[in-house]
Amino acid sequence: MGRWEPGARERLERAALELYVERGYEQATVAEIASRAGLTERTFFRHFADKREVLFSGQSELLETCVNTIVGAPESATPLEAVAAALQATSARFEQRRELSRQRQTVIAAHSGLQERELLKLASLASATADALRRRGVAEPTASLTAEAGVAVFKVAFERWIGEPGGQTFSELIRDSLDHLKAATAG
Amino acid sequence: MGRWEPGARERLERAALELYVERGYEQATVAEIASRAGLTERTFFRHFADKREVLFSGQSELLETCVNTIVGAPESATPLEAVAAALQATSARFEQRRELSRQRQTVIAAHSGLQERELLKLASLASATADALRRRGVAEPTASLTAEAGVAVFKVAFERWIGEPGGQTFSELIRDSLDHLKAATAG
Repeated sequence: MGRWEPGARERLERAALELYVERGYEQATVAEIASRAGLTERTFFRHFADKREVLFSGQSELLETCVNTIVGAPESATPLEAVAAALQATSARFEQRRELSRQRQTVIAAHSGLQERELLKLASLASATADALRRRGVAEPTASLTAEAGVAVFKVAFERWIGEPGGQTFSELIRDSLDHLKAATAG
Repeated sequence: MGRWEPGARERLERAALELYVERGYEQATVAEIASRAGLTERTFFRHFADKREVLFSGQSELLETCVNTIVGAPESATPLEAVAAALQATSARFEQRRELSRQRQTVIAAHSGLQERELLKLASLASATADALRRRGVAEPTASLTAEAGVAVFKVAFERWIGEPGGQTFSELIRDSLDHLKAATAG
């Protein structure tokens, strides 16, 4: 088995999610994950610090995409338009991963420690988004409120997306959820 | 010391928050809290299950106020108006507690386990709010989006309120934050 097994990271992730769903997150071991992926434990630890990191390793990339898109949005963009562009930019990395995302959500929903971790992740996303808006010169409380509204749209669109097999894309559901939010807060 | 010491609960809460701020949440003991309040440990445990419950005991009341206000709002109220009324209804219990609320926030910000617990509390508030809206016949995704927007307003207004000594009331800041959210999502 080569040191740089091609696709090892993806195989480990798929194997881990399958095992977490089948046997429960607490019960699954790194040895089992590696074995199901046809790799060694050493290879697992080359890619992930522990069992939990398989579920949360995409976080920093998500934050970075979001912040860069907001900071780089055209000067003419309103705060909400900048946040909408950021959500659209994040959607690309999800579209091919609906089944994995659904498995991940099942595992997280079954484990309160993972739920808390997921909520912290979303809170970090809101706080990084507000910070990026302030760097564009958006004043408070608009920066924080727009950021929180953006995360709300992300959450709701994500739940709709993983709950609707074969339905709309994540990108379409972000747009649609944003339209519903605008309608709900108008008038 | 009487079994039903008048004001015991409030005295214990004040003593606990003072100690958590001064000595750190982890370090403070129930014995110290009771002693500072001039009460016994037995009295403490008659009011709170543990040290953490002093910080989170108001949660079920907050949820109840919110849900009852939404379900009982006039039929003509829009989803956002029903949520706004619920936030206003919750504000009454905070107005006299600004200093306690500020101390509580300081303690929570310093302790990641408490932060996660606080985020779970806000997530429960959003989920109970969405549920109450659905009971009014509000469809998805509007129910969830309006609920999340309401919690965003609550969070931002709360942070502004504890950060502005002698400034606007919590009720005024809820109204103002909601107006800012409407402006940010309009057009």
